[in-house]
Amino acid sequence: MWYTLYQMVKRAPAGLDSSFNALADATRRGVLEQVGRSDASITDLANRFQMTLAGMMKHVGVLEQAGLVTTEKVGRVRTCKLGLHRLEEEAAWLKRHRLLWEARFGELDRIVEALKQKENINGSKK
Amino acid sequence: MWYTLYQMVKRAPAGLDSSFNALADATRRGVLEQVGRSDASITDLANRFQMTLAGMMKHVGVLEQAGLVTTEKVGRVRTCKLGLHRLEEEAAWLKRHRLLWEARFGELDRIVEALKQKENINGSKK
Repeated sequence: MWYTLYQMVKRAPAGLDSSFNALADATRRGVLEQVGRSDASITDLANRFQMTLAGMMKHVGVLEQAGLVTTEKVGRVRTCKLGLHRLEEEAAWLKRHRLLWEARFGELDRIVEALKQKENINGSKK
Repeated sequence: MWYTLYQMVKRAPAGLDSSFNALADATRRGVLEQVGRSDASITDLANRFQMTLAGMMKHVGVLEQAGLVTTEKVGRVRTCKLGLHRLEEEAAWLKRHRLLWEARFGELDRIVEALKQKENINGSKK
């Protein structure tokens, strides 16, 4: 079974790595929220997030590699739009983890409850 | 409004940075899935994921800092358990993003549909 788990990890799409990495930065999440509302030029984004153009291009590059945004250059302006990656797999992963989490902590709650009741019974017997 | 957005980014909890960063690695996600099923020693985890003890300790350290696991040393064995952080905020962030995404792409779909219909009408007039 452990070997299967190891294989699962190795076969796991690199997509999750790059998308979670792209989300691990407050500015990049802010850019995604902004671009989710309306397209924006890199210059606009740099101004809005009080960042150098080079710094913003780096962040946008990380988002673009993860498929979360696309960019298009028309004349001298590079515009940033929402990408096709809708974070479905990532949402599914989190959901699975949260179900595991609830199952484990629910189990612990039941054990603690059972111990408490046992203690109450023993206490009332004395 | 842009200033507010900038402030939002700056005030955003660092928690999302560290948890998304923790999830941006297939081995760390594998460890979380494993520990979600049952507690495991760092040595066990290192063996299961065919990794050195030092490498696994580094990964577990990243997960621990994000609150996703806790570790406890009893004698010479350090055991890794599921942490209290249940990724609620992260799931909420993804959900918000996906709603924005659907709203934007839904809008585009409607525009394309309207253009197609217009073209059909113009086409039939000729």
